[in-house]
Amino acid sequence: MTYALSTTVHRPFDATLDDVRGALADQGFGVLTEIDLAATLKAKLDVDINPQVILGACRPPLAHAALSAEPSIGLLLPCNVVVRALDADTTLVEAMDPDIMVSLTGNPELTDVATEARDRLTSALDALAR
Amino acid sequence: MTYALSTTVHRPFDATLDDVRGALADQGFGVLTEIDLAATLKAKLDVDINPQVILGACRPPLAHAALSAEPSIGLLLPCNVVVRALDADTTLVEAMDPDIMVSLTGNPELTDVATEARDRLTSALDALAR
Repeated sequence: MTYALSTTVHRPFDATLDDVRGALADQGFGVLTEIDLAATLKAKLDVDINPQVILGACRPPLAHAALSAEPSIGLLLPCNVVVRALDADTTLVEAMDPDIMVSLTGNPELTDVATEARDRLTSALDALAR
Repeated sequence: MTYALSTTVHRPFDATLDDVRGALADQGFGVLTEIDLAATLKAKLDVDINPQVILGACRPPLAHAALSAEPSIGLLLPCNVVVRALDADTTLVEAMDPDIMVSLTGNPELTDVATEARDRLTSALDALAR
């Protein structure tokens, strides 16, 4: 089972993070939450990790359809998109594979929603790689 | 495969939401994100659902251990805790089962982290039910 869609971008972290926001918006995803994981771990534990931000992406019509099919699906919403610096010039962008909504719940009514979310996230990652 | 830990609380939504924050804090979880899903869907789609809030719970030492074992685990962080009104006097509280971190990744190095997170979330839910 895979749980990540991913692409490697040959641009620095900050520029890539901006591009990710744009690519998600182009696919109809709003960003509902944002966690600067590196800053959080520095503040709480005084440890250093590479720059890493978790964006919580949500396309409201898909979220509503998912909730209608599976009332507990909020546990897997929003869809996390993680932007992580590999080095100064290379950034990894990963998205939670929406297919796990189907595999974890075993609910076939989520298939169409997961497929659309997956297609849109894949398009967003493809746009970043170009 | 289960993906939710849950408990049903016989108290109204608002009071339960406050209690959930307290129960999570007692187990060392901070709340990094908060999504008012009902308000979001009302604003974006003009649809009405029962009150529902998604809290993103994080215990930094566990997050750091998870990242050290599995660099892409940010896709499944923070741990969602969803508070949802069933009716005026009954509220469902669900937490994402941390065991899915192990089952989705297939990485046995996450077992100890998942077990501790699961134990702490189970204790938080048990405290709400009392």
